[in-house]
Amino acid sequence: MSINPCEIIRKKRFGGELNEAEIRAFVTGVVDGSFADYQTSALLMAICINGMTDRETLALTLAMAKSGDILELSDIDGVKADKHSTGGVGDTTSLILVPLVAACGVKMAKMSGRGLGFTGGTLDKLESIPGMSVSKDIEGFKSQVRETGCAIIGQTAELAPADKVLYALRDVTSTVDCLPLVVSSILSKKLAAGCDVVVLDVKTGSGAIMDTPEKSRQLAETMVRIGNMSGKRFSALITDMDQPLGNYIGNALEVEEAIDVLAGRASGDLKTVALALGAHILRNAGRAASVEEGVSMLEAKLSSGEGLEKLGDMIQAQGGDRRVVKDTSLLPKAPHRIELRADRAGYVTRMHTSDIGNAAKLLGAGRERKTDALDLSVGIVMHKRLGDAVRRGDLLATLHAGEKSDRVGAYNLLKRSIEIGAEAPEKKPLIQAVVE
Amino acid sequence: MSINPCEIIRKKRFGGELNEAEIRAFVTGVVDGSFADYQTSALLMAICINGMTDRETLALTLAMAKSGDILELSDIDGVKADKHSTGGVGDTTSLILVPLVAACGVKMAKMSGRGLGFTGGTLDKLESIPGMSVSKDIEGFKSQVRETGCAIIGQTAELAPADKVLYALRDVTSTVDCLPLVVSSILSKKLAAGCDVVVLDVKTGSGAIMDTPEKSRQLAETMVRIGNMSGKRFSALITDMDQPLGNYIGNALEVEEAIDVLAGRASGDLKTVALALGAHILRNAGRAASVEEGVSMLEAKLSSGEGLEKLGDMIQAQGGDRRVVKDTSLLPKAPHRIELRADRAGYVTRMHTSDIGNAAKLLGAGRERKTDALDLSVGIVMHKRLGDAVRRGDLLATLHAGEKSDRVGAYNLLKRSIEIGAEAPEKKPLIQAVVE
Repeated sequence: MSINPCEIIRKKRFGGELNEAEIRAFVTGVVDGSFADYQTSALLMAICINGMTDRETLALTLAMAKSGDILELSDIDGVKADKHSTGGVGDTTSLILVPLVAACGVKMAKMSGRGLGFTGGTLDKLESIPGMSVSKDIEGFKSQVRETGCAIIGQTAELAPADKVLYALRDVTSTVDCLPLVVSSILSKKLAAGCDVVVLDVKTGSGAIMDTPEKSRQLAETMVRIGNMSGKRFSALITDMDQPLGNYIGNALEVEEAIDVLAGRASGDLKTVALALGAHILRNAGRAASVEEGVSMLEAKLSSGEGLEKLGDMIQAQGGDRRVVKDTSLLPKAPHRIELRADRAGYVTRMHTSDIGNAAKLLGAGRERKTDALDLSVGIVMHKRLGDAVRRGDLLATLHAGEKSDRVGAYNLLKRSIEIGAEAPEKKPLIQAVVE
Repeated sequence: MSINPCEIIRKKRFGGELNEAEIRAFVTGVVDGSFADYQTSALLMAICINGMTDRETLALTLAMAKSGDILELSDIDGVKADKHSTGGVGDTTSLILVPLVAACGVKMAKMSGRGLGFTGGTLDKLESIPGMSVSKDIEGFKSQVRETGCAIIGQTAELAPADKVLYALRDVTSTVDCLPLVVSSILSKKLAAGCDVVVLDVKTGSGAIMDTPEKSRQLAETMVRIGNMSGKRFSALITDMDQPLGNYIGNALEVEEAIDVLAGRASGDLKTVALALGAHILRNAGRAASVEEGVSMLEAKLSSGEGLEKLGDMIQAQGGDRRVVKDTSLLPKAPHRIELRADRAGYVTRMHTSDIGNAAKLLGAGRERKTDALDLSVGIVMHKRLGDAVRRGDLLATLHAGEKSDRVGAYNLLKRSIEIGAEAPEKKPLIQAVVE
């Protein structure tokens, strides 16, 4: 039965609840073109303003998940897990937790999109490893997950193609930051990717999509509620993004920091969040009795070096040079170093995290447009964290710049992004909440 | 200065008030294409849900009026007046009041669109007069207004082209019935048409866009308020459309009834509303001291036959056969007559006016699509009005059908549209309110 787009739009315009058939007709129409762009954007705006009930959000998520291929992973033994972050700066938890969790026996099958952002996505980061490929067909992907226990590749399957159309429209009609649309966009892809357990990292703060704790909590709760209604096991952590999570921002730079963590040379917030996310996967997958036990298991794999070896296995399985895990000098290096030093003494009181990300983008680490080329070697290394005491002349950050980097722009933006004041700021918890 | 469409959309999405520059950027963008269709429809939906202040509606109206040509009528002596109806069934007041008002010395310069509807618009009705043309260039139009005192022609000038784009999008995105959008659509064209005095006929009831008295009053009040803010003199009448205004519905049929009224052979609601609208024009143009005096002046022109002669003058000036005002048998006649008779006794308790209009459309009197051809001869003659007592077998209406008419469909729809009950319904006032 075909439903007229105008009727569906009208119903939502006046605050009605769309039923499953209407939502299916919408999503089908978006993909087959029977919903014109201008009708889709009108409906998206009505959804933004009038909202969606959980029932509608679930129906939208499922319809979007079913708009393309759905990965069938049931012929891989054991629990398959996936992880998603709403995105932040210096956020390279995947490269740490994927091998660690796999080393604990839970299979990590991650299919990532590339997207836009401050730095490249996980795929771009992986591609900074010499020889590493993120392209595999479905069977190759599944074989690798079976044999190595983990894989991170680019979307070969057409997962949730409706989301691609919707996202492109949302991006140009100011309808991106809308709870049911964000939730259905993220979850539809996760559901189509076929894993049983999904852990979500919802960032909050100055570098996150959701800039207030309330919005972040609402997003996390809705995603977990809708995700669990779909029959999968979801949990979410709400984690601080008032400063970059790791100290390294860039592509090769973030791989280097992930290796440093797995090698036991680095710790701090990045490690803490990666282990917390991984521990939730282990607990949800039934491998650990509690999150605490999960953390201990991961710590053990870290100390034993099994996590680092597992990353090496994954790199090798994807054609990369596994020696990189022992020797990060094999990663591409930027030719120029520019130091940013404190021009006064005090405490680091505030970081404008998204601007720090934008500074990295000016260096060439991230994309403005999908077609932009990245310089995988460039980025920023931060030497101070929020609340740290600084003296005048202390090194705050080092910019790793390439020939094409906008060095002046990046330096100035980065300088403005780090505030130094007389009093140490109140410390916020790193993991602000757990939603299950 | 160019303003990003996304910023404008975002502001309205969150309920902000758009400033003049933003609204101008929107309207300019709609015409030059820098606002994409999907952005325009997203903004239209945000306007529908979050509304517009008077300031915004005025700015939108003015920007739309200025999006194309603005007729310059100041080189025609005296006050120039225009009239607009929100549209109903059997609503042919223009053909009566235009010559009558002109006969009283106020120039009527009407440039009409064709539009869709139950029956053709005023232009189609005029074209049922043998030889009559509604095409003239601006200078020809102005000369005719100067010499004859009145003219009704099709839009030659490109009046408010932004409205054309917006209306086409509104039509397919369920954003038609939105107060500021309706107001700006109507007023922008009236302002561009260059007259000093405008009287609006806002229909209310089962055959009107605005189906409740509250919505009709709000529309009338907003149009008069915004119209007067623009520096013109606006008045509005809210008139009943719970039944067809005249008894004749069609194109040639409505011309015939208008001539009957001007010839003094017919009276009733159609005449009453036409004279009331005309009297407001005379009063607003300073020709009559009061509306009552205006009505008397128009009655006098009716009795003297000067109104009928003026219609003849206008027909002649536009190439038509003026003998039609003395001999309506010169108008095209439909070959078939089908009688609809009462199948029970009682009172006419309700008319589904828009369905009566749709029945006329099924006969071929109106357009579904812009390219549809009309049969100017077909239509419906109503023999009963709301509250009339009927006996079983009484003639309720006569369908005037052509070879291509859907006679069965029209008959059945018309039959369902006229309800007969045991008790006479409460009588509603014909002119429900005057807004100035």
